[in-house]
Amino acid sequence: MRKLFLLFIACTLTLQLSAQVITSPDKNLTLTFELRDNGVPYYKLGYKNKPVIKPSRLGIETNDVGSLAEGFTIEDTKQASVNNTWEPIMGEQKTIRNNYNELLVTLKQPEQKNRFIRIRFRLFNDGLGFRYEFPKQDELKYFVIKEEQTGFNLAGDHKIFWIPGDYDTNEYAYTTSKISEIPSLMEKATIDVHAQVPIKNLAVQTPSMMKTSDGLYINIHEAALINYPAMNLNVDPKTFAMSSHLTPDAVGNKGYIQTDAQTPWRTIVVSDKATDILASKLILNLNEPTAYEDVSWIKPVKYIGVWWEYFVAGKSTWAYGKETNVKLSDDFTKLTPNGTHGATNENVKRHIDFAAEHGFDAVLVEGWNIGWEDWFGNWKEEVFDFVTPYPDFDVKMLSAYAASKGVKIMMHHETSSSATNYERRLDKAFQFMQDNGYNSVKTGYVGKPIPRGEHHDGQWMVNHYIHVAKTAADYKIMVNSHEAVRPTGLHRTYPNWIAQESARGTEFEAMGGLAPEHATILPFTRLMGGPMDYTPGIFQTDLSYYGTGNQRVNTTLVKQLAYYVTMYSPLQMAADLPENYARFPDAFQFIKDVALDWDDTYVQEAEPGDYVTIARKAKGKNEWYVGGITDENARTATVRFDYLPKGKNYVATIYADAKDASWNQNPQKYTITKVQVNSKSVLKQPLAPGGGVAISIKEGNKQETKGLKKL
Amino acid sequence: MRKLFLLFIACTLTLQLSAQVITSPDKNLTLTFELRDNGVPYYKLGYKNKPVIKPSRLGIETNDVGSLAEGFTIEDTKQASVNNTWEPIMGEQKTIRNNYNELLVTLKQPEQKNRFIRIRFRLFNDGLGFRYEFPKQDELKYFVIKEEQTGFNLAGDHKIFWIPGDYDTNEYAYTTSKISEIPSLMEKATIDVHAQVPIKNLAVQTPSMMKTSDGLYINIHEAALINYPAMNLNVDPKTFAMSSHLTPDAVGNKGYIQTDAQTPWRTIVVSDKATDILASKLILNLNEPTAYEDVSWIKPVKYIGVWWEYFVAGKSTWAYGKETNVKLSDDFTKLTPNGTHGATNENVKRHIDFAAEHGFDAVLVEGWNIGWEDWFGNWKEEVFDFVTPYPDFDVKMLSAYAASKGVKIMMHHETSSSATNYERRLDKAFQFMQDNGYNSVKTGYVGKPIPRGEHHDGQWMVNHYIHVAKTAADYKIMVNSHEAVRPTGLHRTYPNWIAQESARGTEFEAMGGLAPEHATILPFTRLMGGPMDYTPGIFQTDLSYYGTGNQRVNTTLVKQLAYYVTMYSPLQMAADLPENYARFPDAFQFIKDVALDWDDTYVQEAEPGDYVTIARKAKGKNEWYVGGITDENARTATVRFDYLPKGKNYVATIYADAKDASWNQNPQKYTITKVQVNSKSVLKQPLAPGGGVAISIKEGNKQETKGLKKL
Repeated sequence: MRKLFLLFIACTLTLQLSAQVITSPDKNLTLTFELRDNGVPYYKLGYKNKPVIKPSRLGIETNDVGSLAEGFTIEDTKQASVNNTWEPIMGEQKTIRNNYNELLVTLKQPEQKNRFIRIRFRLFNDGLGFRYEFPKQDELKYFVIKEEQTGFNLAGDHKIFWIPGDYDTNEYAYTTSKISEIPSLMEKATIDVHAQVPIKNLAVQTPSMMKTSDGLYINIHEAALINYPAMNLNVDPKTFAMSSHLTPDAVGNKGYIQTDAQTPWRTIVVSDKATDILASKLILNLNEPTAYEDVSWIKPVKYIGVWWEYFVAGKSTWAYGKETNVKLSDDFTKLTPNGTHGATNENVKRHIDFAAEHGFDAVLVEGWNIGWEDWFGNWKEEVFDFVTPYPDFDVKMLSAYAASKGVKIMMHHETSSSATNYERRLDKAFQFMQDNGYNSVKTGYVGKPIPRGEHHDGQWMVNHYIHVAKTAADYKIMVNSHEAVRPTGLHRTYPNWIAQESARGTEFEAMGGLAPEHATILPFTRLMGGPMDYTPGIFQTDLSYYGTGNQRVNTTLVKQLAYYVTMYSPLQMAADLPENYARFPDAFQFIKDVALDWDDTYVQEAEPGDYVTIARKAKGKNEWYVGGITDENARTATVRFDYLPKGKNYVATIYADAKDASWNQNPQKYTITKVQVNSKSVLKQPLAPGGGVAISIKEGNKQETKGLKKL
Repeated sequence: MRKLFLLFIACTLTLQLSAQVITSPDKNLTLTFELRDNGVPYYKLGYKNKPVIKPSRLGIETNDVGSLAEGFTIEDTKQASVNNTWEPIMGEQKTIRNNYNELLVTLKQPEQKNRFIRIRFRLFNDGLGFRYEFPKQDELKYFVIKEEQTGFNLAGDHKIFWIPGDYDTNEYAYTTSKISEIPSLMEKATIDVHAQVPIKNLAVQTPSMMKTSDGLYINIHEAALINYPAMNLNVDPKTFAMSSHLTPDAVGNKGYIQTDAQTPWRTIVVSDKATDILASKLILNLNEPTAYEDVSWIKPVKYIGVWWEYFVAGKSTWAYGKETNVKLSDDFTKLTPNGTHGATNENVKRHIDFAAEHGFDAVLVEGWNIGWEDWFGNWKEEVFDFVTPYPDFDVKMLSAYAASKGVKIMMHHETSSSATNYERRLDKAFQFMQDNGYNSVKTGYVGKPIPRGEHHDGQWMVNHYIHVAKTAADYKIMVNSHEAVRPTGLHRTYPNWIAQESARGTEFEAMGGLAPEHATILPFTRLMGGPMDYTPGIFQTDLSYYGTGNQRVNTTLVKQLAYYVTMYSPLQMAADLPENYARFPDAFQFIKDVALDWDDTYVQEAEPGDYVTIARKAKGKNEWYVGGITDENARTATVRFDYLPKGKNYVATIYADAKDASWNQNPQKYTITKVQVNSKSVLKQPLAPGGGVAISIKEGNKQETKGLKKL
């Protein structure tokens, strides 16, 4: 008996002390898991024998059932390998490879009646994903999270592209610094943003993009954020240790868990090539396939809108009335028209005409519905009803007019973050859309949330956004959310949640401007989680054109074209005013041509904060589009065409910055050149400071290619 | 010019210094308003030259726009008189007189750019109502309430019937004491109630019933609680000063106001007769008439239910499955049936049969829908979906079966206080009801609210209940809410909000018991605000009958009959099990006969904490019903019949406690006697300790009256 017992102890010790190790399919990455003193779980991650994450804690602290971060023994470990492919409904690639080695560790707490949790690690060639799982069991049914204790102990004082940790907004400008420099830069980085709630201790947001001194790129984010708060990262600027910091709710709790449950995946994308970071599909692979049975109604959307004029023209307004204190119960026909309302029948018809003429799918109309006179800043619950148009917006007439031209109107549901009001009215709002032929909605969450005390990135609001997406699907409606929590690949699971803003987008070009490097960072940060409705396409970049101020969009015109390729989204806006496109019809042709959905994507060059060059093949077509951008520095992009079918010539139309162009000098000067290219061609393309290049590549018949220079 | 200025000053001073006085139409009540030092508004109230409320402050403190409680000058005062009548859709009287003198004071703040508020006083013969009004103006658009500064400075150490101040529950037992004794009794009074949040400083709830040493009855409550938090009363046990204490929200604010707006009415019902307090229609008069155009579908409801068996039988459960951790996404047909589920097809059909046989309108069925396995205590958001029945409850079959018998099933929507979940699903839930022939719903709010941090009695939840009532009206559904905020007469405005619980009701007879005096206090407290679904009619009062424990309902059987008259509600349950009614068919006849809607009401005797005797005339019928109850003491009720048409004899059926009956000895012993009565008859009816009397009075033909003793 005693022998048996010793044997048992020995086995247990073996399990306890021997670290569990898996490698990525290509062997470059190594994940090690072990229990340390007091049964505390640790993991570490290495890449080609370099430490990416030094040994770091794992676990959850609760408010009610004791710690789920210590006192563990290993009950069981399992390994598995998966290598398959799947096809997204829309995406950067027709086919995505899902190839990983998995380690599933079951940890039990002997002093807690053997209750157990699991930690599941999936190690891909492009990085690591892991999550906590809480299986259904008698000893663990409900618990309240005090904090997640996931560590990310970095191996050095890396360069980091960061925005301040915040519970409510992602709309910060990026700061680039060493980790150790974050404290001294935090105050300056915490610029004013609506409804911001910066985290009190030192923290940054994810996706957090880093680069080590020896050239390793590390990106920390999360995947499949469902029924859980979003994660920020606490930062220790001395040890370079980061750790999870969940968004609290109104009473300070961080999450409510009912087993069977799991956390989102914590993701660490790693490579010594920056282009591999952008090419990573790890986050999408960690999300669940959609359960929607019919997805035929989910389609790319290229749209224009009654929108930019609200920011630049200085005369157009969302609001209809002069009054600044209105209620939904008011009779809005009795308001005094302010004379500047944007969403009028006439203006919308003009936009529909333009959209129809140039092949756009939809026209976004903001400011169509009552309530805009004092929609913001009053923490007002009953702020919009989503079904009552202003007196000068005739829904039935405009819907019929749009339908007759083959164009959709894109609905706008600004909620002013009064999420309870929106949920209460959601079915009626979507029914109204369906009744009037709308098939997509831009949602907005400007301001402090209601339920009061909740945050944009907390569990309640996370569930809200998903509730909206799922309910929209019941009505076959696509959702483009603004100011919602940053995306985590959920567009795989809820493909009608077609795009999000959730970062500092083009609108800020009219409100202080974006740094020329901004859009070279976004693909490495915000876009790691999913498509962004960046609303590019601003041709009239000098906004003093409209008669006031000296504000400008800090890019060349051509860089705005390049965004349609560098910023992946199946929903893309041509954000400028129709009359500005009319002034540059040749450049506008690129926006009209460019695809939104792709068979394949080729990240050719990239360095966060400096430049990005991407080529993509249009879905189901022999057409390719290339976008290259640079920061404030001129550079020469190297564009290769090796993805083209071999031995055949194609017509490339190159939209390039003029020689004397830059973001602040002659930004509207460009050249458009047609050349012949084949798979062996290489283009050395100069980009202006704050500039870019955009290229469309099509099959040309003899007539078209005749006389074209070969590249 | 200087002269003019002085004249202006003089006028202002006159307005400032001269108190404004109005009297009630019968001159018994006197209301005085004045501004004191620093422009602080005060009021006082007298009754027949006795002080009811000594000079007390008025005003609002805000969190954002400075004080609205001082710095005022009187801009204007207006007086008006109203004397008219109106007819409630259902009620204690066919016609209600609305007779008051009004003082409307406009107060401006010269140092705040002359922004202004109004205080409107309405002085009825039965008491005072006043409210704050915030007209729309450039200088006052939005503000956040820190606290309302309304004082109720009482004139002495009155006897008071009180429950502890609490933000979340009204389900306390009453304590009777002097005001000065409240501190020493508070701890004992604060018994355990689900989801209670007792107020930290000394406070009691309204309606607050008091009696002065010289026999004046004073009742403080509120009317028309809309878009505002419910009021508790801070208590100073030394000065007998009370003051408003509003229920805070999740972030500690007390209310969000957008002008044009007004507070609920603060009500002070006063009389030297206790019966006048019960007869007062002041609170109803201060509520707005309904805006519903069609009210034909709003009707009295007499119902039985699959309900009491959950409390007493010890074998029946709301839950269907043995499992104690379920999610709405689970397949409930896969649960292990616990064998004790109450809402089965068979049991519901049996209840429908009984209801049809005995003329009931409806059968409440609780526990019909999935989620009851762990519905409470986990602050769980997605707790019920309101549309998915358990596998053994066939909605379509039962709806058809009920319809074939002329009976409705009453829907049950327990929300577990997850109000956001309920709102999200509300339209679908009501559509489901409509599709299946339901026309009334019992809602429940057990547990801590979601949005988390909000309280049952805060502004958000107050708006929620009204939202539910209004949305229900869109579907022609009547609402009977349990655990909602205490009523304030809103059944006039939203008449489909037919009844509420909002106090310690019959269910507590099965959970510790109610004091025999409890139901003699409720009409003076909880019922001042509106009808109560008290769920009376328990015939089997000794609950050890069911085989366990020694719990008992602390009344005689006859007292349970009397409740149908003493507890006004157009919705009344016969709460006991059908098989218990079958054992006492002669007593059950009273429940079958008693009306729910009345032409007139005669409060004959009343003393809070001791006894209540009320007679009522059935709406549109020559039938009268009398209920008399006593506390733990035997007494002789004096029942008069002077409301009967003169010179005509009627048949009175008197349901009386047997001589040796009492609440704890022979509670089921009773006598039923038929006698002739006319308008001159007087009955001296002995009531047992914890007992009562119930009388039905009908026209009898010669055959029926023949041989009947004259009273």
